[in-house]
Amino acid sequence: MVIGVIGSALASGKPYDEAMEVGRLAALKGATVLTGGLGGVMEAACKGAKESGGQTIGILPGFDTRDANRYIDIPIITGLNHARNIIVVRTSDVLIAVGGAFGTLSEIAFALKLGKTVISLGSWEICDGIKKADSPARAVEMAFDAIK
Amino acid sequence: MVIGVIGSALASGKPYDEAMEVGRLAALKGATVLTGGLGGVMEAACKGAKESGGQTIGILPGFDTRDANRYIDIPIITGLNHARNIIVVRTSDVLIAVGGAFGTLSEIAFALKLGKTVISLGSWEICDGIKKADSPARAVEMAFDAIK
Amino acid sequence: MVIGVIGSALASGKPYDEAMEVGRLAALKGATVLTGGLGGVMEAACKGAKESGGQTIGILPGFDTRDANRYIDIPIITGLNHARNIIVVRTSDVLIAVGGAFGTLSEIAFALKLGKTVISLGSWEICDGIKKADSPARAVEMAFDAIK
Amino acid sequence: MVIGVIGSALASGKPYDEAMEVGRLAALKGATVLTGGLGGVMEAACKGAKESGGQTIGILPGFDTRDANRYIDIPIITGLNHARNIIVVRTSDVLIAVGGAFGTLSEIAFALKLGKTVISLGSWEICDGIKKADSPARAVEMAFDAIK
Repeated sequence: MVIGVIGSALASGKPYDEAMEVGRLAALKGATVLTGGLGGVMEAACKGAKESGGQTIGILPGFDTRDANRYIDIPIITGLNHARNIIVVRTSDVLIAVGGAFGTLSEIAFALKLGKTVISLGSWEICDGIKKADSPARAVEMAFDAIK
Repeated sequence: MVIGVIGSALASGKPYDEAMEVGRLAALKGATVLTGGLGGVMEAACKGAKESGGQTIGILPGFDTRDANRYIDIPIITGLNHARNIIVVRTSDVLIAVGGAFGTLSEIAFALKLGKTVISLGSWEICDGIKKADSPARAVEMAFDAIK
Repeated sequence: MVIGVIGSALASGKPYDEAMEVGRLAALKGATVLTGGLGGVMEAACKGAKESGGQTIGILPGFDTRDANRYIDIPIITGLNHARNIIVVRTSDVLIAVGGAFGTLSEIAFALKLGKTVISLGSWEICDGIKKADSPARAVEMAFDAIK
Repeated sequence: MVIGVIGSALASGKPYDEAMEVGRLAALKGATVLTGGLGGVMEAACKGAKESGGQTIGILPGFDTRDANRYIDIPIITGLNHARNIIVVRTSDVLIAVGGAFGTLSEIAFALKLGKTVISLGSWEICDGIKKADSPARAVEMAFDAIK
């Protein structure tokens, strides 16, 4: 099972901590954590996953493995810039959005378009298709429920 | 100047008519009309543009020119599926969203991410970055204002 | 009819002149000339096409219309880097390769994969699928013959 | 270290056996084996890698994890069709081509364009940049030498 964690590359503070907890719990339950491979929420989720012994995949927008945050086990180098967002969505069985701005919104929209479950932790709660979670633990629980 | 017109491939009735009027007026003012090349809002905008002698570009998701609606002058064949949405956004100077669902939302999100003006005619009016228009004429006027 | 002209962005001298003549003759016969939008062979083919009143499309790898050579009528902004080569190939009915190195070879390979005719003017003549032309006039003639 | 193994999805017999041996030896030496995720050479290389306890990544062209051969540990779902070839190349540190036709040639061309080492086992030996190997063992040895 692959849980995509999406959110801002610039996040710090609360969303960073929440994403780390999401990653930690997702990996603890056996999921692979997939992100866009950069900083902020993406880094935090991978860091959390590695803390509980999980596996992490980063779908990078640029040309270079060195763009990957240091908690990525498997960097995928696309060179496709924002178009890599679609690969993030397609490869994830379910997505957890932690905060995030317009890039995250594009991923949420693609996920909904493809009929995938999107769980929001303080992210874009703009329509019924996006399920609201009130904690990282609840978000991960909802993600596992969505896949079964 | 290239005005991207985005919206559902399945639209009929009011959004279809509005998109046709948007295309007609945009072309009348000298803009090229760019869409995702398929039916519904995309077809309507191109049809309107051709009625007033304009030029139309369709960025197609699939493999075949025959997927293009018959009002497309210049079909671009990407074979990239939904990833072609990003090309629609990047190639447009400004976007007008007419109704639309999650695919349209993904394009709006990319447009906002890239700092482009998005004008909504009954589309996703979910944040301040999206400018609300109350008629096709007003939408086209706002699009031209955004580029100047 | 869309003729794709492919070759090095750094070409000058003979391949530049040949590409310009290819563009000129292709447009004269009514074809749209499509290229990757940058310099060298791409610029030359578009320049030639404009000299005989033709239409030109550039499928750009980067983010900015300003990357396009000044003979491009319709710049398509992909932001996909080298992946745009596939769009060049898919959108062309037939391809003429003028000189060129590995980027050109990737386009030739995609074209052959997709069953399209590739005509070589001093380009990669590495298999029977690639048809050899001995002049720009002959290349354009062969391109038109391939489409009929 | 990631070794990309490229070749025909339809290969059987000798290229299949060679690709399996390449995968087996590459994994034995500690490399991750990356392929386009489908059948033929791609399947064989992944099968070999799994036999010696290695890790395998498949960069899939389509929409569905079920397209992946059953020896893929980490399927990446791109939905980009042939454009996924570029991700195969970018993500690999070095490439080994086993037989193959035009799709393989497109990957070889991209690899050379990006300055990556390409090793051929009965593949396109069309220029000096492509290093010829006379056995799977030698190909893997050359791949490791190329990265050091």
